[in-house]
Amino acid sequence: MTQISREACRKLDAADPLAPFREEFLLPEGIVYLDGNSLGALPRATPGRVADVVEREWGRDLIASWNKAGWWDKPRTLGAKVAPLVGAAADEVVVGDGTSANIFKALVAAVRLNPGRRVLLGEAGNFPTDLYVTQGAAELTGTEERRVPAEPAALEEALAAGDVAVVLLSHVDYRTGELRDMAALTELAHRHGALIVWDLCHSAGAVPVELSACGADFAVGCTYKYLNGGPGAPAFSYVARRHHETARQPISGWHGHARPFDFTGDYEPAAGASRFLSGSQPLVADAALEASLDLWNRVDLAQVREKSLALTELFIGITAPGGTGPGGLRLVTPIEPERRGSQVALSHPDGYPIVQALIARGVVGDFRAPDVLRFGFTPLYLGYEEVFDAATALVEVVESGEWRDPRFAEREQVT
Amino acid sequence: MTQISREACRKLDAADPLAPFREEFLLPEGIVYLDGNSLGALPRATPGRVADVVEREWGRDLIASWNKAGWWDKPRTLGAKVAPLVGAAADEVVVGDGTSANIFKALVAAVRLNPGRRVLLGEAGNFPTDLYVTQGAAELTGTEERRVPAEPAALEEALAAGDVAVVLLSHVDYRTGELRDMAALTELAHRHGALIVWDLCHSAGAVPVELSACGADFAVGCTYKYLNGGPGAPAFSYVARRHHETARQPISGWHGHARPFDFTGDYEPAAGASRFLSGSQPLVADAALEASLDLWNRVDLAQVREKSLALTELFIGITAPGGTGPGGLRLVTPIEPERRGSQVALSHPDGYPIVQALIARGVVGDFRAPDVLRFGFTPLYLGYEEVFDAATALVEVVESGEWRDPRFAEREQVT
Repeated sequence: MTQISREACRKLDAADPLAPFREEFLLPEGIVYLDGNSLGALPRATPGRVADVVEREWGRDLIASWNKAGWWDKPRTLGAKVAPLVGAAADEVVVGDGTSANIFKALVAAVRLNPGRRVLLGEAGNFPTDLYVTQGAAELTGTEERRVPAEPAALEEALAAGDVAVVLLSHVDYRTGELRDMAALTELAHRHGALIVWDLCHSAGAVPVELSACGADFAVGCTYKYLNGGPGAPAFSYVARRHHETARQPISGWHGHARPFDFTGDYEPAAGASRFLSGSQPLVADAALEASLDLWNRVDLAQVREKSLALTELFIGITAPGGTGPGGLRLVTPIEPERRGSQVALSHPDGYPIVQALIARGVVGDFRAPDVLRFGFTPLYLGYEEVFDAATALVEVVESGEWRDPRFAEREQVT
Repeated sequence: MTQISREACRKLDAADPLAPFREEFLLPEGIVYLDGNSLGALPRATPGRVADVVEREWGRDLIASWNKAGWWDKPRTLGAKVAPLVGAAADEVVVGDGTSANIFKALVAAVRLNPGRRVLLGEAGNFPTDLYVTQGAAELTGTEERRVPAEPAALEEALAAGDVAVVLLSHVDYRTGELRDMAALTELAHRHGALIVWDLCHSAGAVPVELSACGADFAVGCTYKYLNGGPGAPAFSYVARRHHETARQPISGWHGHARPFDFTGDYEPAAGASRFLSGSQPLVADAALEASLDLWNRVDLAQVREKSLALTELFIGITAPGGTGPGGLRLVTPIEPERRGSQVALSHPDGYPIVQALIARGVVGDFRAPDVLRFGFTPLYLGYEEVFDAATALVEVVESGEWRDPRFAEREQVT
């Protein structure tokens, strides 16, 4: 990778087809926000949308809004807006509950679809909640949790045992930013008789996702990172159409019932992805998410990917060209573009104070133990010039040793 | 019950210690809202609180708010605000997820605490999601769902079999408004070796609830009805302190982990009620709930109960004195005050069009199949005079036959 000039970055900004989206976000002055992979920025349209739902739909129309404002169908209407972002049909996605609960539902449903197989295969190093929820699902279904590195060879070896019911993989690794080959790994799982659940938390809105084309069985994703749905916004579940009549998740609440308003005594799952719903969803949070999805539905995802790769390449070219950089920075994220999500992870033994010193300069990234500096790149509201400046600031922080100031060593709870 | 005059109602309003709370709600003009048992009204402080969380905490402070704004601890800080409303200690309640998911968690945890017993006992006629979720939990835990009427004799007979692991009961019946004797039924369950889960959806904020004093094991409640937390606002879970070290719920996400930021590989439940948490919660919805709980924490619950009983008595006295009323109205809710929640249910074969005709007059109640007219009474924002007018309007609608207008027969999806 070759380093480009600040002037060249300015020209890239001027020619950037996504540049107009920057004005659709409300960002604080004076910072470069490279943490949109943790919490996405606030779309300009969101406060008004939320206020309208609170003051008009709730305050004025009250319960009439369950019909009039489409509250009852919101998990489906939001799902239909997520669907094109993940390569799914509108009726294959519903929005509701959190990522952890949805992974639990998908795993249990997959085990039930694959009777006789007793292993839940996960990846060592996955985000902890994926591992913990898998342990919970394994205990409850009487299956066994097993973990291997998320590498094709290791996965194939584990799958070849012939006892794997379902594999849970993250499409993009939360720590390293590695992008996995969804098509190949899905095919691998299927070839060995396993189903697959994809965790899209770090890929929805970050990279092109083609769930249907890849033949995925289930997927779960969060909406508050790259999708800008707001802190803790509801997650989504994808259920491939071929499982719409047979997949059975365990949190069998009335919103997932075939005829919820008949108030019948026995649970009977709804047709389609709706059967993955359980109970009422927080409509005020849904309002924020909908404002953001309406923005995302105007975005060309190919342009997002193109700019994302250009931004990460720019950042790597300054901070760790060829894989190593000034002052001991090392590239953790794969250097091959096709294996890179929309983030750059670097390692440094003093990563924590370096990130803090960088934040003090107005460049916001985050730190993941033991030594990873994470920077997320969100093409809708980041420009080339500011990424150039952020990368340059990081190099300066490392080289100047300003991170050695004791105030940067103080640990807060980190999220 | 004797009917009082409109003039007497006006005097009761003038002397009502809760009357000032009316100004703390934003209600549309020209209606009497008797559906706060379905969706509570909007507190005046809520829009500003929500806007602040959206625009400042999210928009300006971004990820720093996880620490700075207390986002990480929000399930506990909100739980501590719910606790005094349900007779619990601050650390026995957490807010997060929905009612259905929380019932699922509580049932599975209870089964695990009571090994060797294979029956989940529920009440015939409970709100459907309670029944459906019990079926889901029974299937997954290899237990058996059984149902009996929620009457002491029937429950005792079922419990006497000695195989009941846990009983799930609603404190107030969603349809009839019957208030159950929590102390007696909890003691009954315990005497027969069963644990008990209380569903507080229709009692939190409606009647005094004394979970700890009654010895309840678990409880789940919704916050968007009497507690005015907003449509679909997150639910709460109560875990009695004696179960804090042993209760294990199955959706073992990272927010319920003992040391979530250590990112260790194995799930280890947190101390206390926090172990009932799973994943990130919708902070924008939490903001609305917090505004409402801050209001509720200034309320004298004994005054709420006193006024609630006076309002329901007033309404019954006009619409069904002695149990029957004009035009075939019949009282479904128990006539004994100590067995009555904060709602009045009446039956009428033409209940549906009657409710619609009443709504057309600006009196908002709802209908539950096959023949129940439901009216909720919320002492913080309802006065005696308007309840008098609402009851009078109902009698007029029934006696005049105006509900026979064909437009009132058209069915919408009902929530």
